[in-house]
Amino acid sequence: MPNSFGQLFRITTWGESHGPSVGVVIDGCPPLLPLAEAEVQADLDRRRPGQSDITTPRKEADTVEFLSGLFEGRTTGQPLAMLVRNADARPEAYAEMRETFRPSHADFTYQAKYGIRDHRGGGRSSARETIGRVAAGAVARKILSLAGGVEIRAFVTHIHHIAAPSLHHFPTLAEVEANAARCPHGPTAEKMIEAIKQARAEGDSVGGIVECRVRGVPAGLGEPVFDRLEADLAKAMLSLPATKGFEIGSGFTGTLLKGSQHNDPFVVRDGVIHTSTNKSGGVQGGISNGEEIVFRVAFKPTATILRNQPTVTAAGEPTELHARGRHDPCVVPRAVVIVEAMTALVLVDHWMRQAAQNRAFKF
Amino acid sequence: MPNSFGQLFRITTWGESHGPSVGVVIDGCPPLLPLAEAEVQADLDRRRPGQSDITTPRKEADTVEFLSGLFEGRTTGQPLAMLVRNADARPEAYAEMRETFRPSHADFTYQAKYGIRDHRGGGRSSARETIGRVAAGAVARKILSLAGGVEIRAFVTHIHHIAAPSLHHFPTLAEVEANAARCPHGPTAEKMIEAIKQARAEGDSVGGIVECRVRGVPAGLGEPVFDRLEADLAKAMLSLPATKGFEIGSGFTGTLLKGSQHNDPFVVRDGVIHTSTNKSGGVQGGISNGEEIVFRVAFKPTATILRNQPTVTAAGEPTELHARGRHDPCVVPRAVVIVEAMTALVLVDHWMRQAAQNRAFKF
Amino acid sequence: MPNSFGQLFRITTWGESHGPSVGVVIDGCPPLLPLAEAEVQADLDRRRPGQSDITTPRKEADTVEFLSGLFEGRTTGQPLAMLVRNADARPEAYAEMRETFRPSHADFTYQAKYGIRDHRGGGRSSARETIGRVAAGAVARKILSLAGGVEIRAFVTHIHHIAAPSLHHFPTLAEVEANAARCPHGPTAEKMIEAIKQARAEGDSVGGIVECRVRGVPAGLGEPVFDRLEADLAKAMLSLPATKGFEIGSGFTGTLLKGSQHNDPFVVRDGVIHTSTNKSGGVQGGISNGEEIVFRVAFKPTATILRNQPTVTAAGEPTELHARGRHDPCVVPRAVVIVEAMTALVLVDHWMRQAAQNRAFKF
Amino acid sequence: MPNSFGQLFRITTWGESHGPSVGVVIDGCPPLLPLAEAEVQADLDRRRPGQSDITTPRKEADTVEFLSGLFEGRTTGQPLAMLVRNADARPEAYAEMRETFRPSHADFTYQAKYGIRDHRGGGRSSARETIGRVAAGAVARKILSLAGGVEIRAFVTHIHHIAAPSLHHFPTLAEVEANAARCPHGPTAEKMIEAIKQARAEGDSVGGIVECRVRGVPAGLGEPVFDRLEADLAKAMLSLPATKGFEIGSGFTGTLLKGSQHNDPFVVRDGVIHTSTNKSGGVQGGISNGEEIVFRVAFKPTATILRNQPTVTAAGEPTELHARGRHDPCVVPRAVVIVEAMTALVLVDHWMRQAAQNRAFKF
Repeated sequence: MPNSFGQLFRITTWGESHGPSVGVVIDGCPPLLPLAEAEVQADLDRRRPGQSDITTPRKEADTVEFLSGLFEGRTTGQPLAMLVRNADARPEAYAEMRETFRPSHADFTYQAKYGIRDHRGGGRSSARETIGRVAAGAVARKILSLAGGVEIRAFVTHIHHIAAPSLHHFPTLAEVEANAARCPHGPTAEKMIEAIKQARAEGDSVGGIVECRVRGVPAGLGEPVFDRLEADLAKAMLSLPATKGFEIGSGFTGTLLKGSQHNDPFVVRDGVIHTSTNKSGGVQGGISNGEEIVFRVAFKPTATILRNQPTVTAAGEPTELHARGRHDPCVVPRAVVIVEAMTALVLVDHWMRQAAQNRAFKF
Repeated sequence: MPNSFGQLFRITTWGESHGPSVGVVIDGCPPLLPLAEAEVQADLDRRRPGQSDITTPRKEADTVEFLSGLFEGRTTGQPLAMLVRNADARPEAYAEMRETFRPSHADFTYQAKYGIRDHRGGGRSSARETIGRVAAGAVARKILSLAGGVEIRAFVTHIHHIAAPSLHHFPTLAEVEANAARCPHGPTAEKMIEAIKQARAEGDSVGGIVECRVRGVPAGLGEPVFDRLEADLAKAMLSLPATKGFEIGSGFTGTLLKGSQHNDPFVVRDGVIHTSTNKSGGVQGGISNGEEIVFRVAFKPTATILRNQPTVTAAGEPTELHARGRHDPCVVPRAVVIVEAMTALVLVDHWMRQAAQNRAFKF
Repeated sequence: MPNSFGQLFRITTWGESHGPSVGVVIDGCPPLLPLAEAEVQADLDRRRPGQSDITTPRKEADTVEFLSGLFEGRTTGQPLAMLVRNADARPEAYAEMRETFRPSHADFTYQAKYGIRDHRGGGRSSARETIGRVAAGAVARKILSLAGGVEIRAFVTHIHHIAAPSLHHFPTLAEVEANAARCPHGPTAEKMIEAIKQARAEGDSVGGIVECRVRGVPAGLGEPVFDRLEADLAKAMLSLPATKGFEIGSGFTGTLLKGSQHNDPFVVRDGVIHTSTNKSGGVQGGISNGEEIVFRVAFKPTATILRNQPTVTAAGEPTELHARGRHDPCVVPRAVVIVEAMTALVLVDHWMRQAAQNRAFKF
Repeated sequence: MPNSFGQLFRITTWGESHGPSVGVVIDGCPPLLPLAEAEVQADLDRRRPGQSDITTPRKEADTVEFLSGLFEGRTTGQPLAMLVRNADARPEAYAEMRETFRPSHADFTYQAKYGIRDHRGGGRSSARETIGRVAAGAVARKILSLAGGVEIRAFVTHIHHIAAPSLHHFPTLAEVEANAARCPHGPTAEKMIEAIKQARAEGDSVGGIVECRVRGVPAGLGEPVFDRLEADLAKAMLSLPATKGFEIGSGFTGTLLKGSQHNDPFVVRDGVIHTSTNKSGGVQGGISNGEEIVFRVAFKPTATILRNQPTVTAAGEPTELHARGRHDPCVVPRAVVIVEAMTALVLVDHWMRQAAQNRAFKF
């Protein structure tokens, strides 16, 4: 179903930008997981608006409330529902959008598809919808962390024309969170922040690229032929607002190599089979091979800009859309936590699928 | 389930490279569709090995047999099963692989996941598995063609370092099929074919990029928030063997633009709302907007090369993998029809989902 | 997933008897449906405790709050989440159950399955979980009513040994609601109420049978071979707490007839094909035939009784369970609205599936 | 999807009564299971026509062919496809049915739903479709047998008015197979066979009841709140042709008991928690409790009878359907193996789901 994600660890999200609430229910959460609201809140705080001077000034504490599924500090295997109330909704600020389609937003397509749309701040198409994903992702991360020390770390590598140098280590959370750009290379981060501020000053916006790395994933996750691990990661990432591309391992530039350069030789280290290079990005034949999973996601420049733009009305009349208020001039730094959340959801789901097929029976 | 794809027009494929057969069953095929085996065969012929001098010499007619679901030349709404027998299987040629993991193949990961693998030609991980996809895709294309004149055209834009110039029109099937590279720009195609032959002569392999365009898709297909049209396309493409990347519309290079450059202005032409540019690639907010759908898929260089390679055995001992026989030095030209098939499957599925939600009831 | 029901009109419920809340999210609700909280509340009021002197005295207003998915009084095609807060929770009343398994309840099996359970009032296994179903069912009924005048009417035919005479007309809602037993035959209803009171006076409980009839369903709903309409109805009913049996049309007693007596002859009335009898119960070959759908559901006597019972502790020690407070001596009258809700959910789902397969394309 | 069953051990069946073949593909079959065609054939032989003098004389060896998924005698975790060719198809025998709707068959409803139908022998609605279920069920039984000694035994308890005495032991396969009625009580079986022959002699048909018992199922299978074990069993059974009812444990007659009589007391035997009675039928709160699972399924009398019957044509004209040839005067004895197959499919699926949720992670 369109608002559900996952086969066995399945989340369903609800909520609109300026409706009463956003939320999520997790169906299939394993029992006995120790869990506290504060752990979910920590990830929501990394996602929430107003966290730095390069994000939207919308004021939302995004406080999570658990509605079900916990008993004495542990999950019970029953649905875990989590709710966040919208606080700083200003539906009246969106009156113009009732009749006017914002360019490169979802206004036109939602109207074409459903015959109705909640135009207030984009309604369901707002990135505010990702709150439910992040809340569920926090639970998934906790599971992965306890289950096998799996670590997921996303960070920003490109903002507009500014590119960070290649990172030769697995960055710490502190390194990523050290600056508002969430780029672990400090000098580049400063330039990125500058570029974002510059775009905002021009009433414009910029995009960029997020890289995500995962370590500690055992070999064996991924379900060929259709639910390959990279296929589900690609779907997860392209399901995020504003994404335009996904690549894993060598990606698009890998097409410039020959097979003899691209193949990852197998080697044995400490009795464990590894590859000596990682063009595969941690996945071979759709299944994790135990190496670091590495992929990148392209985010387009924010469609909302502070400039008047020519467009059309719902009635098909040419008109001009006026510049308006609160928004992010660049969504990429805040997207980091959302990329991590979706990654965690994919991994927990595949972990459970692997257990179902390969641990239910012993022959 | 791992070997099924689609929600309402759902295919399930089976079969291994050197087992008895490969096949597919379509569950959810609409009734009353006129259909003949020859129509499916036409697409299988475009996919089959040995079709040109730059593909593998394995000899397979890949003749399809309908097993069910047809009555007097029309579908009945019941499952449509299609079977292709493997003819030129040579399992003995793969004896070495029983114990040895080929670099950047699925040998190691299948063994790690399932504890057993059919090593003969890669078994299920072989690209031969895509026969079922292409057969089902041919049915989906027929539906789209009859339903609304939807046309899907994939073609090769890059092989290794050779890039075709941007294409400013929707290419005809004849243009794509005019050469073995399936690149509609003839002079570039010649260079691509030369590069592939060169790689083969070196015992090496090359990769490349396929672009796919779709025209005639009405506005309204795509199911936010998770089953966005681009998300399902991304999953479909990354579920194909040897793919490493997907991008739609402006893709990764779109991150170099500012919002004011990237936004697609709405205009009205002949009373219909269009966009005057197409950075969105035909999808906005996860839903088709009626413009041409444009995306690209990166294929890595073939992992099988005619060179000895260091690797390890299943027991974790270093060894050398010997060069061996039949394979494609470049899978990209044959992948064109597979990309089209997967695209058709996604579109029919979303078309049916759109009908379910928006045509079942009128309020 | 275990807490989701439906393929296209899919509900996911959450919540425990004595946790913070119970609720439901509908994914796939068609857009443009006019809907008000009061319409959902009406069905919740028919389900809620304390509505008559033969139900549990637990005090719950069961007030529903819409969390998302509505815009200016209409659905938008986005998830519709609904929340009911638990008010009269008394977790302390259940201290004994922490260690003791109540006979014929879910205490033992939840502990065996999950290794943890919310023992307070049965937690998730409480019939309180059905609030989400009834709320979603109210939306489904509204859809069916607007879509084609479909009417669903369940009522009580048996309580313990008391059987109502066969009903030869489609009862009105008023007839069903005329008494606390929800049996449209008044004199029988009086005896049923008396039997329930008698059971309560004895500290005992009784079960019974609910019949459900649906009229106005067009021919064509049901998805053979597995998702036959009667199969999905059977699953829906057996998914309800305390149910032990389902039969459609002639049911178990139909096995006493011969084929020549059991077959429903086709006739034409007013140019429409009908059957002159209805042993089939409105479904043939798994698909509705346009006749009245008729089925029956068996509910066991309530497992909670006001008598001491021998049982065992979680540690496997024999013990005695003490009689305790609030409960229904007979769940059957309140189950009527729940049976109607599940029926509505099945029908809307199949209606949408039928549209997907048979209305998406015209050949 | 309509022709798929199961969440993790998912089968998809195809095929029509007089088309080229019937078959099934299992997606999700665990790897490493030792399996031979002969094991599947054994169950198909119990199902096939012509096995005794009270079944249809249609001549079908129903020989199964494995199409994929096996390697050196073991499953590989890849799709297992199995094919049975139709041999004794006589489509010409069904010419009359092209225009005429047989009473209480699926002719009218398939036509109403799909706008087309394969009228030859009922096409997809024929019980011949169950071959794929039985083949897959044989695989599931093998799994259950190896995994934990689970035994599934169905048998006939009622044919028309003839009822077998209650069975106080778990019958052996030999006892069930000892006679053509598949009733383990010999004297009753003789009467049943006589009744079936009598019905055939009259050109009529009879129905009956199958009971199914399962022992060795561990506590913990079943996925509340919707995928309760009894709910999935009910769906499985009502998805079979000719079924009209399902009841588990005390079933419909359990409604005549009071709670104090109906509750199953817990006791400890050999350190294991059991119930001293089994009104629950082995399932409490939707989850297996380790006791014997016991349920019953009602089968209506065969709709095909050797008598002329008034009916209507597809054009809505009154007509008479003529008596015709080959059919079973009673499907109940052959249904026994089909009931067992569906039961096995449900149990393996739930076993895998249980492993996914409760064995993937340890906290």
